[in-house]
Amino acid sequence: MALDDDLKKDGFTFVGTRPKRPDGLDKVTGRAKFGADMVAPGMLHGAILRSPHAHARIKGIDTSKAEALEGVKAVVTRADFPDAVQHKPGLAGEMWNVLENVMAGEKALYDGHAVAAVAATSALIAKDALKLIEVDYEVLPHVTDVDKAMAADAPVIREGSADRSVPEGLHPNVVRYHESGHGDVDAGFAQADLVMEDTYKTEATHQGYIEPHACLGMLGADGKGELWCTTQGHFYFQKVCAAVLGLETSQLRVTASEIGGGFGGKTTVFMEPVSLALSRKANRPVKMVMSRSEVFRATGPTASASMDIKIGMTKDGTITAAQAVYRLQGGAFPGAPADMTAMCGFAPYCLENVKQIGYDVMANRPKQAAYRAPGAPMAAFAVESVIDEMCNKLGLDPVEVRLKNAARDGTKSSYGPTWDAIGQVACLEAVKAHPHYSAPLKEGQGRGIASGFWFNHGGETSVSLALSEDGTAQISVGTPDIGGSRASMALMAAEVLGIPYENIRVTIADTATLGYNDVSHGSRVTYASGLATIKAARDAVEKLKGRAAAEWGIDPEAVTWEDGYAKPSGPNAGEFEPMHITKITGKMGRTGGPISGHFEATPEGAGVSFGTHIVDAEVDPETGKTSIIRYTVVQDAGKAIHPTYVEGQFQGGAAQGIGWALNEEYIYGKDGRLQNSIFLDYRIPVASDLPMIDTVIVEVPNPGHPYGVRGVGETGIVPPLAAVANAVSNAAGVRLKELPMSPPRILKALKDQKG
Amino acid sequence: MALDDDLKKDGFTFVGTRPKRPDGLDKVTGRAKFGADMVAPGMLHGAILRSPHAHARIKGIDTSKAEALEGVKAVVTRADFPDAVQHKPGLAGEMWNVLENVMAGEKALYDGHAVAAVAATSALIAKDALKLIEVDYEVLPHVTDVDKAMAADAPVIREGSADRSVPEGLHPNVVRYHESGHGDVDAGFAQADLVMEDTYKTEATHQGYIEPHACLGMLGADGKGELWCTTQGHFYFQKVCAAVLGLETSQLRVTASEIGGGFGGKTTVFMEPVSLALSRKANRPVKMVMSRSEVFRATGPTASASMDIKIGMTKDGTITAAQAVYRLQGGAFPGAPADMTAMCGFAPYCLENVKQIGYDVMANRPKQAAYRAPGAPMAAFAVESVIDEMCNKLGLDPVEVRLKNAARDGTKSSYGPTWDAIGQVACLEAVKAHPHYSAPLKEGQGRGIASGFWFNHGGETSVSLALSEDGTAQISVGTPDIGGSRASMALMAAEVLGIPYENIRVTIADTATLGYNDVSHGSRVTYASGLATIKAARDAVEKLKGRAAAEWGIDPEAVTWEDGYAKPSGPNAGEFEPMHITKITGKMGRTGGPISGHFEATPEGAGVSFGTHIVDAEVDPETGKTSIIRYTVVQDAGKAIHPTYVEGQFQGGAAQGIGWALNEEYIYGKDGRLQNSIFLDYRIPVASDLPMIDTVIVEVPNPGHPYGVRGVGETGIVPPLAAVANAVSNAAGVRLKELPMSPPRILKALKDQKG
Repeated sequence: MALDDDLKKDGFTFVGTRPKRPDGLDKVTGRAKFGADMVAPGMLHGAILRSPHAHARIKGIDTSKAEALEGVKAVVTRADFPDAVQHKPGLAGEMWNVLENVMAGEKALYDGHAVAAVAATSALIAKDALKLIEVDYEVLPHVTDVDKAMAADAPVIREGSADRSVPEGLHPNVVRYHESGHGDVDAGFAQADLVMEDTYKTEATHQGYIEPHACLGMLGADGKGELWCTTQGHFYFQKVCAAVLGLETSQLRVTASEIGGGFGGKTTVFMEPVSLALSRKANRPVKMVMSRSEVFRATGPTASASMDIKIGMTKDGTITAAQAVYRLQGGAFPGAPADMTAMCGFAPYCLENVKQIGYDVMANRPKQAAYRAPGAPMAAFAVESVIDEMCNKLGLDPVEVRLKNAARDGTKSSYGPTWDAIGQVACLEAVKAHPHYSAPLKEGQGRGIASGFWFNHGGETSVSLALSEDGTAQISVGTPDIGGSRASMALMAAEVLGIPYENIRVTIADTATLGYNDVSHGSRVTYASGLATIKAARDAVEKLKGRAAAEWGIDPEAVTWEDGYAKPSGPNAGEFEPMHITKITGKMGRTGGPISGHFEATPEGAGVSFGTHIVDAEVDPETGKTSIIRYTVVQDAGKAIHPTYVEGQFQGGAAQGIGWALNEEYIYGKDGRLQNSIFLDYRIPVASDLPMIDTVIVEVPNPGHPYGVRGVGETGIVPPLAAVANAVSNAAGVRLKELPMSPPRILKALKDQKG
Repeated sequence: MALDDDLKKDGFTFVGTRPKRPDGLDKVTGRAKFGADMVAPGMLHGAILRSPHAHARIKGIDTSKAEALEGVKAVVTRADFPDAVQHKPGLAGEMWNVLENVMAGEKALYDGHAVAAVAATSALIAKDALKLIEVDYEVLPHVTDVDKAMAADAPVIREGSADRSVPEGLHPNVVRYHESGHGDVDAGFAQADLVMEDTYKTEATHQGYIEPHACLGMLGADGKGELWCTTQGHFYFQKVCAAVLGLETSQLRVTASEIGGGFGGKTTVFMEPVSLALSRKANRPVKMVMSRSEVFRATGPTASASMDIKIGMTKDGTITAAQAVYRLQGGAFPGAPADMTAMCGFAPYCLENVKQIGYDVMANRPKQAAYRAPGAPMAAFAVESVIDEMCNKLGLDPVEVRLKNAARDGTKSSYGPTWDAIGQVACLEAVKAHPHYSAPLKEGQGRGIASGFWFNHGGETSVSLALSEDGTAQISVGTPDIGGSRASMALMAAEVLGIPYENIRVTIADTATLGYNDVSHGSRVTYASGLATIKAARDAVEKLKGRAAAEWGIDPEAVTWEDGYAKPSGPNAGEFEPMHITKITGKMGRTGGPISGHFEATPEGAGVSFGTHIVDAEVDPETGKTSIIRYTVVQDAGKAIHPTYVEGQFQGGAAQGIGWALNEEYIYGKDGRLQNSIFLDYRIPVASDLPMIDTVIVEVPNPGHPYGVRGVGETGIVPPLAAVANAVSNAAGVRLKELPMSPPRILKALKDQKG
């Protein structure tokens, strides 16, 4: 690489530079293979029959006419999955939930729930066959709203789903309960000059990845199979598919395709086990590709939420107490992240008295899935809106108030742990200093800010690195590249090995060729796979040094590694010519064999990440349309390995948050059917809806990573909902407490205010 | 696995049993993907224009008409390969030879030599386009016979090809020279009662793998590519393709398909770099599949050979001296294994006076490739025929004579090293004791025996093993499974881990996901990858023991591993319940991370292998047709991991040797063109040509392998040529000194004998 000198910084040679992405040409020329791009000889096409009812008992399924259709090679229903997977506590019970979502058992639980599937010689025949399957449904009462689902008269989704955390006396649809905090909130509220209490609601939104779910499953009667699929975590898919199909985990080889967006939504299996079940029955490979409507109806959007926030503040802006109750609707299965919502809401602040409660509530909707910082954006929307209102009421600057109450190194967090080195203050100081924060606004425009927090995650990680004779390296990682991680891994390995970035190939290894890896989620990839890459590269360097030492006849301890050279040091310094990596690898077969490096661990030091966004908005009083005029993301990255990608994550999080704030929502009819399951009706922001999103990378190094990396993928979606709401409030003088702030809702708010 | 008790032996639980092959169902149901089974979106089809001349200067190539044909996306000639690869000594020069064979430069050197290639939207268009390429040839004199190629008036294939080993004064077509031995052969001959001296010849034969060469190449202008191909060594293909295309090795990812036979012939690149060059030019994936005729004309058959053998023997059968000169024709490039031929010929014997010379000779034929024990069968044919004739003349039993002179532990080999534990005597004793050897023969039948030797090889080897949470294991090896190695690796790992064979998946990892591995050749796979698998599994066991020790709070040294359980031992014995592997792996993510084992090395202890075959033949005097009546292979396997596969290797070697002995040969016309390039004219044995081939596995453990394994894939083809010739001689009373012993040749010999 022709390294640009002024890109070198912080003592790093490669880390912090901005080279071209290794998969760039593949992706712009169509050579990259996504989920739907794989084919196999003799391949069949699968299709899924889905429930048109939000809640219905399945009294019978007659597949005989479908089976008789020419070209149909297999039809599966729940009866084709093993009975071994049962509804019980623990992982086994979780697998039952997965299977129940993959293919309905006794009841269809939401509009779009899979009830049967067909594999046929063409996709058209498969679709035709679906129409020949006769399902005898007994339609049951349904509920889709979170507050209604908790009401005493709500239909029960499934008895016995609640775990022991849930207090007695609650509706059976409440299945998990979280409570945390410290101090005495009542005493705290008593000390306040101003106490505000309000209820906020958010609707479910979808990650809106452009690539639909797609897979190619191959499974034989011998229990051996292969699965190609678009996924954020093929090792997890391997484990889950094996469990619900009754296979030995190792006998199913799963390969992750390139991924056309995931954002958390591709951490869950949906039709992958179905393609394998069809394949096992037909003894042919079976490809399945979802339509956009299937993606919306039957994969995981976020939870919807209903939230009560109560905050007490003194006149000078000190928060004396904060309390929140979060009710999250997570679809027809346990799993809404009410605990994480509760923990994130007040996390940016250092509070004497704080209490948060979360309820995980089931309803007749698709099972929620992760979406960037799952649960946190709704909490921030509610909390940061209330703080903004209080600042306005007390005439205080919103940045100063946040700085006054900011979470700092060594203070106790709102949910328990004591903070290590964190970046909330550094981000707020950067906001204060940013020209955007003091730029003049035009008539009709308003500015909002909001802070956000995300935990970040370590997780199980395996990386191997193998050297070729020509001194180039190949790295196997097990975390699908959802945000440019191939580039960041190559930069970190280049840093350790001292070889050019271009001499390194990073491959997402399949499950058969690498140790276990957690899903690409929790903003963990650059942190955990990066740490493992550094350690694997250092393992290889130790071996390289050992070969040089053996040739020189000196102690390996007396060899150092610098810029791709082994050098004698200490008493032997200068005694031998430095030995380049290519000199060592060129003869490695004759000096002890191939040189590789390995690392497996579950790193525990993922540093938390804070961010604060500044947004200027303008509301058209005639149409209710909100325009985002200017937007700045300030976030702590710990250390930006490839700054362009970090900026991309910041921008992507903001863009998705703006969509969530302004237009995106799941709209259910009274019949419990989803009414807007295509992109024409579910409106994500397009390029013309957005300004250039400015970014500021704050770097407060994470002591848990050799280079200081913190995950950056999720925090960026936490502040925007609140930041936009605060800007809208300041622009139009109306406080919207329910998302999305769509034109009709803003018009209504403006009208209500006048009236 | 329901382990059959009486299959347990030698203290092993899994090793030595005969479970079903893991790839069995894949291969009988068509799910297994071979070289031609891969496709990619936007894929083109490639075809190669080949020289019709045995030797011709290429004065010009006009590709313009081909390029203009609709559907043609790229045409390449030698000009599309980098100039960096040059004709010079060392690896770089070897790469030039590879490239020169892949695509002709200034001259076409043999009938079938590639001169240009086309990629088009269909295979038919590609073939049509070939006809539009105009090549201006200047036809040159050619030579195809080895003895004629060494003659003073032979046309020179390429000046400057000889290395410094070649004595002065030889024709430039003689490019390598080998000489070895010890003692004083002239003195030895003087001590003999009988000295015989004779010349033997063998023709080139082809490995005859059923699957033709096939590949799918993808390469971008960014120098990053992927190659799917049928190969015995994808890591070697990676290195070679990168070198001749001017790429960083790590940037080319090569995946080995299932392989439909190789036998040494798929250790060499042929059209794989062409598919990549076409792909780079067209920026589309390019698939290439050879026709059978292309396989015969343009891939590597064996060398042809001309050999002078001289042996002295006393009346009691003691060999007093042995001398041989081997001339091997290896096609238009250096590389005929004259050294190995020379070293193998007398290896079964312990000799006081021995000398062998080998010449590697170039001619206008395709570059020879390895074929099971390359070079050894022809040497054994000559040497073992002469010994048989001498036994007949002296009235001695051929087994007794071989025993009397047998190579034994601790004696000096004919080519240098001193033998470690070897099995030549044990095999001969087993032959003597076998009912076949003493069974009566019918009128017109004859019995022959012959011994054979092969070195076996270690080579660079990398294996990784990863455990899943359910305690099952996946093993990554880098040696394509050409003879059932997935089964033997799983058995060895099962033995170490103490988990069922069925719980292990063995995958041939691609080049991007594992350290370097030598080719699957030299009978090295069960030895070297097996050793590495055992060591990788032991590495994982150490980690499993460490996790148990940590949970128990005891020293890891105080934990033993037995039948899949960690057990406290020593002072802690009985203190804790044994912990099953699934208990440890089930929580490995929380106890330190994923558990894997790794091993990389170049093991040096591949044990040599000896074998002796017994064959009964009957010759029809009317037609000259030889029928093989009975056949027994006796060979040292060291330790048979999966005995069925070992027997299969023995049988396969014998079957191919019988074909070589009786019918197979390359037939060149006076014009230097191959006249029998399809299976109708090149006659390999079919099932009805062969008896059931009986096998005896001798087990003299190899001290260089933890379980005593020796390679078994190659030795089996060494004795048959001689054993059949000896049986024919004893049956028909004629000694054939030239192969194949086809009906016309036998009829002529019978006629000559009468006349």
